[in-house]
Amino acid sequence: MKQLLSALDFSHELLSQVVSYGDTVVDCTVGNGHDTLFLANLVGTDGTVYGFDIQAQAIENTKALLRKTPPSAKNIFLYNISHSKVDEILPYQTMISAAIFNLGYLPGGDKTIVTYPETTIEAIKGCLNHLAHNGLVIVVAYYGHPGGEREKNTVLEFGSQLDQKRYSVLKYSFLNQTHWPPILMAIQRID
Amino acid sequence: MKQLLSALDFSHELLSQVVSYGDTVVDCTVGNGHDTLFLANLVGTDGTVYGFDIQAQAIENTKALLRKTPPSAKNIFLYNISHSKVDEILPYQTMISAAIFNLGYLPGGDKTIVTYPETTIEAIKGCLNHLAHNGLVIVVAYYGHPGGEREKNTVLEFGSQLDQKRYSVLKYSFLNQTHWPPILMAIQRID
Repeated sequence: MKQLLSALDFSHELLSQVVSYGDTVVDCTVGNGHDTLFLANLVGTDGTVYGFDIQAQAIENTKALLRKTPPSAKNIFLYNISHSKVDEILPYQTMISAAIFNLGYLPGGDKTIVTYPETTIEAIKGCLNHLAHNGLVIVVAYYGHPGGEREKNTVLEFGSQLDQKRYSVLKYSFLNQTHWPPILMAIQRID
Repeated sequence: MKQLLSALDFSHELLSQVVSYGDTVVDCTVGNGHDTLFLANLVGTDGTVYGFDIQAQAIENTKALLRKTPPSAKNIFLYNISHSKVDEILPYQTMISAAIFNLGYLPGGDKTIVTYPETTIEAIKGCLNHLAHNGLVIVVAYYGHPGGEREKNTVLEFGSQLDQKRYSVLKYSFLNQTHWPPILMAIQRID
């Protein structure tokens, strides 16, 4: 019998379901590069991955990971700027099948440097502008740190208010855990 | 690209993941028999399905469905009594890999006859007493009808208070829908 997937594992399961060979996708919080690598293998040789992180260390860690275990995708663009710039960076006609966010601080990094609600919402909106039909914007929110609860609530509130004719918004969370396991929100474009 | 699964489809996905050939399982709200049939095919010839419904009409509809499309399982026991009796009906040493609840009224039936929070919680507890390691008790709650909101909240509150050392409790729900699409709660025994 199989165990229920954690929010993180479920995010990978969903990405696998919607991302196809040759797609363009976005990692809005590259962190240590694990999702960037995962996406780069999903899109394959002809695919494209855009990655963002406000921390130079995260970009360096990600480059190191990609050098160590080279993925099939060759077109990986990493930007050491806020993910709120995603809409400006992506070519205006580019459609994406998925974007992933891991909100919180850089694992193993400076815990005082975190993502913030305002720029996160800006980034989600930017991704929605490029989202293909049935594509997913997935947010995995860690919220045990100061400000994390507010950020999570802001993101959920944003998702709750999206037009149901245009988007389905799923929340996946564990109810009985005392130590703030991450929650997942997935926005699917349905129009 | 694949669409996000509805709560109902996700319940079937989870059941498929935890139920194996030869298992014993429970349908706590047989309704028109769709889940009973689904479970009866999952457990196969040597498996056993126990089904409960407070409405005689539901039991009749289920028998008719099973006659029309005979499943592989031969051991299907249907009871026209409250699911709160599940713990008394199941042999005390019997372990189950899954139990499913669809809370609300009988589709196509009398909308004034609904499940109630107190008996539902009693039934969930009864199933937990027989739940195998990694087994799942899954509740799909429709809550657009009078009393439905209270029942849903009672169930979620019960799940939230389960000991995290013994159970993982997942909630799967859509945030931006105006017409009360069902929510899913899945309790997995982890000890």
